[in-house]
Amino acid sequence: MAQNRYLKLGTFLQGVGSSMSLWRHPEVEADASIRFPLYVDLARKAEAGKFDFVFIADGLHINENSIPHFLNRFEPLTLLSALAAATSQIGLVGTLSTSYSEPFTVARQFSSLDHISGGRAGWNVVTSPSDGAAANFNKGRHPAHDDRYRIAEEYLEVATGLWDSWEDDAFIRDKTSGVFFDPAKLHRLNHKGEFFSVQGPLNIARSKQGRPIIFQAGSSEAGRNLAAKTADAVFTGQETLEEARAFYKDVKTRAQAYGRSPGEVLIFPGISVIVGRTAEEAERKYEEIAGLGSIHDALTYLSRFFGYHDFTQYPLDEPFPELGDFGSDGFRSTTDKIKKDAKELHLTLRQVALRASTPRTAFIGTPEHIADQLEEWFREEAADGFIIGSGVPGGFHDFVDQVVPLLQQRGLYRNEYEEDTLRGHLGLAYPENRYTKQKITN
Amino acid sequence: MAQNRYLKLGTFLQGVGSSMSLWRHPEVEADASIRFPLYVDLARKAEAGKFDFVFIADGLHINENSIPHFLNRFEPLTLLSALAAATSQIGLVGTLSTSYSEPFTVARQFSSLDHISGGRAGWNVVTSPSDGAAANFNKGRHPAHDDRYRIAEEYLEVATGLWDSWEDDAFIRDKTSGVFFDPAKLHRLNHKGEFFSVQGPLNIARSKQGRPIIFQAGSSEAGRNLAAKTADAVFTGQETLEEARAFYKDVKTRAQAYGRSPGEVLIFPGISVIVGRTAEEAERKYEEIAGLGSIHDALTYLSRFFGYHDFTQYPLDEPFPELGDFGSDGFRSTTDKIKKDAKELHLTLRQVALRASTPRTAFIGTPEHIADQLEEWFREEAADGFIIGSGVPGGFHDFVDQVVPLLQQRGLYRNEYEEDTLRGHLGLAYPENRYTKQKITN
Repeated sequence: MAQNRYLKLGTFLQGVGSSMSLWRHPEVEADASIRFPLYVDLARKAEAGKFDFVFIADGLHINENSIPHFLNRFEPLTLLSALAAATSQIGLVGTLSTSYSEPFTVARQFSSLDHISGGRAGWNVVTSPSDGAAANFNKGRHPAHDDRYRIAEEYLEVATGLWDSWEDDAFIRDKTSGVFFDPAKLHRLNHKGEFFSVQGPLNIARSKQGRPIIFQAGSSEAGRNLAAKTADAVFTGQETLEEARAFYKDVKTRAQAYGRSPGEVLIFPGISVIVGRTAEEAERKYEEIAGLGSIHDALTYLSRFFGYHDFTQYPLDEPFPELGDFGSDGFRSTTDKIKKDAKELHLTLRQVALRASTPRTAFIGTPEHIADQLEEWFREEAADGFIIGSGVPGGFHDFVDQVVPLLQQRGLYRNEYEEDTLRGHLGLAYPENRYTKQKITN
Repeated sequence: MAQNRYLKLGTFLQGVGSSMSLWRHPEVEADASIRFPLYVDLARKAEAGKFDFVFIADGLHINENSIPHFLNRFEPLTLLSALAAATSQIGLVGTLSTSYSEPFTVARQFSSLDHISGGRAGWNVVTSPSDGAAANFNKGRHPAHDDRYRIAEEYLEVATGLWDSWEDDAFIRDKTSGVFFDPAKLHRLNHKGEFFSVQGPLNIARSKQGRPIIFQAGSSEAGRNLAAKTADAVFTGQETLEEARAFYKDVKTRAQAYGRSPGEVLIFPGISVIVGRTAEEAERKYEEIAGLGSIHDALTYLSRFFGYHDFTQYPLDEPFPELGDFGSDGFRSTTDKIKKDAKELHLTLRQVALRASTPRTAFIGTPEHIADQLEEWFREEAADGFIIGSGVPGGFHDFVDQVVPLLQQRGLYRNEYEEDTLRGHLGLAYPENRYTKQKITN
C-alpha cells in the first residue's frame, strides 16, 4: 500500500498539559481540560495537518497530589464520540482499562464510536498502573502486574470475538420477503474463561474498518508480549534513538514469534516537541516551562510513578535514594528506567525530579532540527510514527504549520488523506471475520 | 419560573422503530438504526421544534427474535456525545442499566457528557428487565426484581455522591500563587454499602446544571418508589387518560411522602403519534403499519415481554392463555397490564399480540385532535409532558411542523428556548452541592 512509505502521526489531546505547572503559563487557558471547544480546535488542527489520529490518555483515580489535568477532565469515550461529529477524517483513539470494566460494554462502546465516526475508532488498552483505582471500583485490591496482563489478554479475546458476532454480509434487509438478517451469519461467542464468561452476540455490526484499531501502552515484559501478540499499534515512551531502536526491534521480533508480520504492529514513541524559529528560541521556551513550577511540584510529579511515595523526606542534592523494589508494580517500565538512569548518570534527587517533570527531549529546536530527528528515528527503525505532545502553549499549531510541511516536502508524509478509516490511514489490513474465514478455509 | 406553565416534550430516537416490521415500510431506510446522520437530522428537527430533550432507550442482549432495531444499533452514551457536538440546546437523555455497570464509570461518563454538552445530559436509570443480559456480563443469574431496585437505589446514592466531589467554587486556578484548587472543597465519598464500595473523588467537576437529570422508567411498586424518591422525571407507558391520571397522582403522592414537592418529579408518558391531514388519512397510515408484519411477527414481539415465551403453541383465536406468574419478573408492569386487559376485555391471543405490536393510541388523528389530547392530558394532571414516538415514517417531522405550532398558539409550549440547560428547560431547581449545603445550614 502507498501509505507504507509514510511515517504516521498522532497527537495527544491533553487539556492543560501533562506537567504539574503548565497551567500557570500566561498563554494557557487554565480550565482547558474541561473546555470542549479547545479539544475541537486541536482535533481540527490535527486533521488540517492530515494526522492519522488524536490520542487521549486516561486515569481512574485522583488525589490531592494529582497533576491539574487529571483532576477535572473529560472521559475518553464521550469526548471522542463528540469529536467524531466535529471531524470527518482523523482517527480517534482513547484509553480504557481492562482492569475495571466489562468487555461487553467496552466492545460495544468502541464499536458504536467506530460506526458513528465511519471507521475511525481506536482503543488504547491499558491495565491501570496505579492501585488507587481499586477503591473506586468495589475492589479491595488492585490485581498484581502480571495478573492484570492475563486479564487483559482474555479481555481482548472476548472483545475481538464479540466484534465478529455478525458477518459482514449478515444484514439482508429485504423488505419484500421480510428477512432482516441471515441467522447463519449471526454468531454467539459463548466464551467461558478464567476471568470472563460472555455469551454474546454483540448488538452492533462490524464497522467500515472491521473493528477498532487496538493500541497498547505497556512496556514491561508482560506488556510487550501482549502488544506483540494482539496490538495493531504500540504507544511507548523511549527517550533516545538507541532505546527506541531496541524497543522497536524487540516488539517486532516478538510479533514474528507469534506468527505475525512485523508490519502488523506499528510502534509510536510519544514525544514532547518544542518548536522555535531558532534553537535559542526553542531553548528559551523550554526554560520558561521548566521554571513554572517549584521543586516541590516536581517531587510531587515524580511521586506519582511511585505510588505517591513521599520524596520530601530525602535530601534534594544527594544521590537519588535507594528504593529497592519499591514502586515497581504500577508504572514498572517507567520506574525501572528512572532508577537505572539515576544510577548510571549519578543523578541527585533534584535532577531526577526535574528530568521527570519537564523532560528534555531530542525534539526541541528549529522545524528543520525536529524534522531531521523524526526522519532519523523513522529511517533507523526506531519508530513507525510518533504521537506528538506539545510541551508549550501553541506548540502543536507550530508543529502542524512548520514541521509537517517539511515532512511532506521530504516525501515522508501524506499531502492529503488517501483513505477514510483509521485502519486505512495506518495502512493495516482489513481483518476478516473469524467465521467467514473458517468457511473460506474449509 | 416561566416554564412551569408549559408542557414539556421529548422524543425517542429509534432508528428503524420499535416494532418488528416498521423497517419494511417503503419510506423507511432499513439501516436507519446504524446511520448517524439520520439521528442528527432527528435531533436537529427536535431542536427546531424547541423540544426539551431527545431520549434513547437501550438493551443489553439480543437473540434471533429481537426486533430489528435492537439487533444493530448505537450505544447511548457514544451516540448522545456525538449528538452533543451536532446540536446546541436540546437535552440529551440516554438509558443505562444499574444492574450491569460500575457507578464510578457511569457517573463519570454522564458528567463528561454533561460538560461536553454545556449542561444538557440526562440519564434514564433502568435495572434491565430481561435476564439475558446476565450471560453477557459474567453473571450466572440476573438479580431478582426487588433486588435490582435495591441495587439501583444504592447505585444512585453513589453516583449523586460522586457528582458532589467538587464544590462549585473548588477550582481557583490562580496562576500567580500556583493554587489550582481548594483542598477543603474536594470531598471523598468513602461509600461502603451493601452492594458498592466506592471511595472517590470523581475526576470531573460539577456541570453547568449541577448534575445530570435523572429519569426513571420503572412502573412496578419498587420502580415507583425509587422514582418518587430519587428521580427528576419518570418515563411511563400509560395508554389511557384514566390510567395516566392514576399513575401521575400515585407518583406525586409518593414523592410527597418522601418529603419532596410534587413539582420535583415530572411525569412523561411515552406516546406513539400518527398525524394525518384528516382522521381518515391518519387511520390509513395506522392500517398500513399494522399490515406490514405477519401474525408470527406480532407473537414474537409479544414474547419479548415474557422472556421469549413461545406463544405459537397456543390457538390464535381463543382467549389469551392463562400464564399464572409467568413473565412477571422482567417487564412486570407491562405483563401485568397485558394479562389484566386480556381478562377484562376478553381478548384472544391474536388480539393481544396485534395490540402489543402496533398499539392503537389516543394520539392518532389530525393535528388538532392530537393537540386536544395532549392539552387534555396536561390539564387533567395525567402528564407534565410527553415523549413522542412516531409510529410512521416522517411522523416526527409532521408532529413538529403541524402539532407543535398549535401547542404554541394555545400558550402551552415555548416559542423559543429560554434556558440553555436541560434542567432549565424542565424548570427544575439547581441542586446545591451537599457539602456546600451543610456549611450553609451550620
